[in-house]
Amino acid sequence: MSEFDDAARNGLSPRELEAVLREVGAARYHNKHPFHHQMTSGALTKGQMQAWALNRYSYQSVIPRKDAAILMRSEDPEFRAHWRKRIEDHDGDDGWNGGIARWLKLATGLGLDADMVKSERKVLPATRFAVGAYLSYCSNKTMLEAVASSLTELFSPVIITERVPAMLAKYDYITKDILAYFDKRPALASRDSDFALAYVMEHANTPEKQQAVINALVFKCDVLWAMLDALSHAYGQKGNIPPGAFVPEVS
Amino acid sequence: MSEFDDAARNGLSPRELEAVLREVGAARYHNKHPFHHQMTSGALTKGQMQAWALNRYSYQSVIPRKDAAILMRSEDPEFRAHWRKRIEDHDGDDGWNGGIARWLKLATGLGLDADMVKSERKVLPATRFAVGAYLSYCSNKTMLEAVASSLTELFSPVIITERVPAMLAKYDYITKDILAYFDKRPALASRDSDFALAYVMEHANTPEKQQAVINALVFKCDVLWAMLDALSHAYGQKGNIPPGAFVPEVS
Repeated sequence: MSEFDDAARNGLSPRELEAVLREVGAARYHNKHPFHHQMTSGALTKGQMQAWALNRYSYQSVIPRKDAAILMRSEDPEFRAHWRKRIEDHDGDDGWNGGIARWLKLATGLGLDADMVKSERKVLPATRFAVGAYLSYCSNKTMLEAVASSLTELFSPVIITERVPAMLAKYDYITKDILAYFDKRPALASRDSDFALAYVMEHANTPEKQQAVINALVFKCDVLWAMLDALSHAYGQKGNIPPGAFVPEVS
Repeated sequence: MSEFDDAARNGLSPRELEAVLREVGAARYHNKHPFHHQMTSGALTKGQMQAWALNRYSYQSVIPRKDAAILMRSEDPEFRAHWRKRIEDHDGDDGWNGGIARWLKLATGLGLDADMVKSERKVLPATRFAVGAYLSYCSNKTMLEAVASSLTELFSPVIITERVPAMLAKYDYITKDILAYFDKRPALASRDSDFALAYVMEHANTPEKQQAVINALVFKCDVLWAMLDALSHAYGQKGNIPPGAFVPEVS
């Protein structure tokens, strides 16, 4: 449920649709979440930072699969050629020199074991369920909705700009080289979200499709928000870590 | 990940398999969760109780669909005839005189609006994701794993025995008639879990299948646990309710 449930009731121009989508981000993107504020204010313990990197790895690792689910359904070679770049960015040439590898470097730079991270065995069940919901969404909803759910990338340059300088300033164990993932992302995210936004503005040409697109972005914001809720709950207080999940060795 | 990851390594007799499954429940069933302890000790606010009933409704409402996913894949009329009873129990004769209706009565008895509950619009995203993971699991895994994931019902008579007398004793707004859901469940759960356990013990006839069955039960315990984690986080402290979710009017 959201305050945007009826936003497209009377139909929107493409520019009005874009404006609503940006309002969704302003209200619900996870840079509004308390966990993000704790991160940028220097309040996270190293164990919380590790748990964040570990759990977020599960999200990163499913991105190429959700993009493949979108690719699979496009009948337009030009669309596919563009969208395919996302998979190339994340997997790299050999699977381990793209965005996923850079995220792994962040996790190991924080002191986590690479095999443990890659196995995803100690990830919170709630993270699995949120990430799984995202993959299912992109597999089972319309292609337009799946594309629209990627539009959180419209806002990712902002969160990265908030996150990186703060991480470097506030945590002495964080160095520029372990944050290499973020160096590449803003330019790629802008390229990708420009393309996705243009696609959505062109194809969401009825009030129903516009509402579906808005709902897709709300859904995706819910996924990212729920991941930080789960981290906050599990690692905010002793004794809340669910059975089987990562237990930090550092405090 | 669980302490049961290698439990079937050397193969188990049917009775040994049952013993491991019961150990999974003893370690990980959601009667071990702090939220359950708060409920039985009288510590929940009415708002928390409402949030529990509202979110749990989403779980109840998907049960007949996950059972249909299992039914769909069985080639054995006898199995189907037995398993079908689960759907009949939840949906009743007309959709609204079975278990789902009784759960709705619990929710409305706590002061929630029936249409709001049935719409599921104010459910926590984390609940949606956990429930969706359960439905996907029963749709996409092997039939043996889907059947095994129902085995949390082995333990439900215990949690009901802990829950009902405590709810009646500790909360003056809870009466016997709004808890009618629980009157019926122990007998049905025993009938169903006896059948499912016998199926699992017969069909999990290799170490690999036995491990898959154990993992299925761990997965299902994770679903139930994550639902209570999400409730604890959202309604444990002011300000943690995610955007769009139910906000209690009562304290």
